[in-house]
Amino acid sequence: MNNYRNIFNTIGRILQVEAILMIFPLIVAIIYKEPFNTTILAFGATAIVSFVIGLLLNIKKAKSHTILPRESFIIVTLSWVFMSLVGCIPLIVSRHVPNFFDAFFEMCSGFTTTGATILTDVEIMPHSILFWRSFSHWIGGMGVIVFILAILPDNKEGSNMHILRAESPGPQVGKLTSKISVTARILYLIYVALTVIEFLFLVLGPDKKMDLFSSITLTLGTAGTGGFAVLNDGIASYAPYSQYVIATFMLLFGINFSLFYMILIGKIKGVFKNEELRLYLSIVIISIVIIVISLTTNGIYGTFEERFRHSFFQVASIISTTGYSTTDYAAGANTTWSTICFMVIIFLMLTGPCAGSTGGGIKLSRINILCKSAIRKIKQMISPRKVVPLKDSGAVIEEDVVQGAESFFVLYMIILFVSTMLISFDGKDLVTNFTASLSCISNIGPGLGNIVGPAGNFSSFSSFSKFVLSITMITGRLELFPMLALFNYKTWKTR
Amino acid sequence: MNNYRNIFNTIGRILQVEAILMIFPLIVAIIYKEPFNTTILAFGATAIVSFVIGLLLNIKKAKSHTILPRESFIIVTLSWVFMSLVGCIPLIVSRHVPNFFDAFFEMCSGFTTTGATILTDVEIMPHSILFWRSFSHWIGGMGVIVFILAILPDNKEGSNMHILRAESPGPQVGKLTSKISVTARILYLIYVALTVIEFLFLVLGPDKKMDLFSSITLTLGTAGTGGFAVLNDGIASYAPYSQYVIATFMLLFGINFSLFYMILIGKIKGVFKNEELRLYLSIVIISIVIIVISLTTNGIYGTFEERFRHSFFQVASIISTTGYSTTDYAAGANTTWSTICFMVIIFLMLTGPCAGSTGGGIKLSRINILCKSAIRKIKQMISPRKVVPLKDSGAVIEEDVVQGAESFFVLYMIILFVSTMLISFDGKDLVTNFTASLSCISNIGPGLGNIVGPAGNFSSFSSFSKFVLSITMITGRLELFPMLALFNYKTWKTR
Repeated sequence: MNNYRNIFNTIGRILQVEAILMIFPLIVAIIYKEPFNTTILAFGATAIVSFVIGLLLNIKKAKSHTILPRESFIIVTLSWVFMSLVGCIPLIVSRHVPNFFDAFFEMCSGFTTTGATILTDVEIMPHSILFWRSFSHWIGGMGVIVFILAILPDNKEGSNMHILRAESPGPQVGKLTSKISVTARILYLIYVALTVIEFLFLVLGPDKKMDLFSSITLTLGTAGTGGFAVLNDGIASYAPYSQYVIATFMLLFGINFSLFYMILIGKIKGVFKNEELRLYLSIVIISIVIIVISLTTNGIYGTFEERFRHSFFQVASIISTTGYSTTDYAAGANTTWSTICFMVIIFLMLTGPCAGSTGGGIKLSRINILCKSAIRKIKQMISPRKVVPLKDSGAVIEEDVVQGAESFFVLYMIILFVSTMLISFDGKDLVTNFTASLSCISNIGPGLGNIVGPAGNFSSFSSFSKFVLSITMITGRLELFPMLALFNYKTWKTR
Repeated sequence: MNNYRNIFNTIGRILQVEAILMIFPLIVAIIYKEPFNTTILAFGATAIVSFVIGLLLNIKKAKSHTILPRESFIIVTLSWVFMSLVGCIPLIVSRHVPNFFDAFFEMCSGFTTTGATILTDVEIMPHSILFWRSFSHWIGGMGVIVFILAILPDNKEGSNMHILRAESPGPQVGKLTSKISVTARILYLIYVALTVIEFLFLVLGPDKKMDLFSSITLTLGTAGTGGFAVLNDGIASYAPYSQYVIATFMLLFGINFSLFYMILIGKIKGVFKNEELRLYLSIVIISIVIIVISLTTNGIYGTFEERFRHSFFQVASIISTTGYSTTDYAAGANTTWSTICFMVIIFLMLTGPCAGSTGGGIKLSRINILCKSAIRKIKQMISPRKVVPLKDSGAVIEEDVVQGAESFFVLYMIILFVSTMLISFDGKDLVTNFTASLSCISNIGPGLGNIVGPAGNFSSFSSFSKFVLSITMITGRLELFPMLALFNYKTWKTR
């Protein structure tokens, strides 16, 4: 028997935290004087019920606080599922998103920082719901558990490491300090600081369209690399200034947060030596150059500044897995990009940003390990006796990590294929199905084509497909293994 | 310095063998009374020149016959390049395929048993050229080197093992007998026997359209899992009897040839225990069922027999990487299959048939290893202390083979992506570019969509794209590593 009491306790605490977090959209609803019996009642009632259930789950305290790795998988996966389940209740109850599968998809998309939406018109939504969607990105961005860890006392270090490992993005977990909760708090402070700085840049900038509400929601969506917008055309109608600010911060939130910590403590040399960061910046620059050249050749957009801005914004948005857009590059009447640009976008969708960031996807450090391992294999075949350990930024990579990255890649491709296959029953075209699944597993948001492209949405999928994509989003956000572990009976067996 | 003299000797012998093989299309040209100064002159002159160059390359004999692994990569890759280069000369000289890149693509497609064509109308081609195209499939099917090995004396066992390993399809090389040349001869005899049996079934069958020439060429194309046809509509206008015969033999040529040997020596139990064969047959049956259900739902084709026949034929054709077709499933006016069928086809294009067959692709034994390794990783994460060796059909798989399969998968995906990216500069759509590249790296033939689908051809690609796809075909046929090794300077360095 697993330590189910401990699992219930943790999920109970998460529901309590979510209840408290729901006070924020409630305040928004009150400020904007929304009708009492829709959003105010919906958020208020859900918060109270959620808090009470959280209390009930904590009545019987676990005697032991040790958590096995397999229990951490259960905790992490169920946490994200329950966060989304509880989070979608206000949408259903307020009748703004009456269908359960729509609402569940929307909140999975929110908490997993995907940003894919089933809403055909976001501008008719009340402020409180728009705020809740964006806020869920921000909550999801750093991970619910990391949040919990940050506010918990330091009493059970070893167990929390399992949870952090099960949830943290990237092939290896690096501890900045000896105590996990201290590490979590430092990362969270960096997250908050960057969020505040972006907000100030936006709200104090010269862009008149960027009002307080837009500034807050778009900042929350950028920080979590989410992508829910508050206007139907995304970021297109804001001033170039705001677009540059958002693009820059999207790139920043795609960098490993421990590098910001290294800058803070003055280890700037180490930052520039970081292979993943160099790979990240190289890919961004090369992608922008290819797209700008292609746009120039095709004569899309009037000026060089426009071509550069749209390239820069979209590249930053896709590689960081945010998903905002300033132009309908996938199916716009006069703005559709060339196939070579689509290939660049698919490449960025596959790689994702740096490990240890708030972004999704395979992550560049894994891509780096995979390429190095493949090249090593070629070298071994040339000179059979030679076996060289792989290195990343000068440090030896354990063979266990290499195998982990390879298994991750195989499983990622399998899940991507299975998800594409399952939603194919709807009869949509291959590009739509493939890019929708890729977008969901890598937590990006838009795909390609006129259905799920940046100007489209996921509303036309069947309930079954929406559910498949919701599970795909959570699986991707948790980096595959915790979700997949639930399908093995050993995860559930007696201790 | 590598043993270049040995490399020259081997390539010389291959050119001599090719010169002798060219006598067959020459005979066909004479039988069909083709004009002397086109095909007869072209094949005759090329054969003589090729033979003389082969002689010249063998004037200075190598003193040592030992071949290093890296030298075997050079030999194998250059052999396929030179086979295709020399093989395409008659097409150019006879003015039937005047463009070099077209002719090179066509013969790479022939020798690599791909079957993708740049011809928009095969029916206007002379018989000799149609025969040469199909014959190249048959030659390529078992590998040029295996052919050479089979007719060579047993004097240099150890070295030949490297060549066999560099060229043979699949993650592991199994020796049926202690001597390589004996193994090669046995495999070759099975190949010849199956070819003769299929030919007899076709030519003696009730199908009046299946004349002697069709029977010979289609049998050669089936045996090599190639796919070049002699009619513009592929296999569509032959009688159902012929279609069933070809489909059955396509499936047979996708099975590991050593299993036929085991049947011959009476080890039938071992055949049924073979995991890869069971996986192969399971995938075939499930794919047929899915497609038949989808076709029934969509109301395509009149009778159940038609639906079953087209499903069976196309599934056998794609999984064996042959590429024949009996219907335009990808873009036919009334015969276009559903997206879910396309997903099944893409799945079959990715997996390929059994290792040790004449087919291309990733191969099912690798897919089996990759899945087992990924599942083991999940189990390891659940119970960290447990490390279990992987097994295939009861035998332990060496960790080295597991790593090889994983590196293969990563490299396969990288090459597939790079090839798709490079041909994207032509401006064609994503599905065309992706399925054309997938079709070439897995040596299948047709892709999806109206350009490269079963009713289409590769003529509209630029010369650059045709060259990229030609190299992709050879890289895929040699199972990636030999070609990739050429890009490492160590392959070429002094001994």
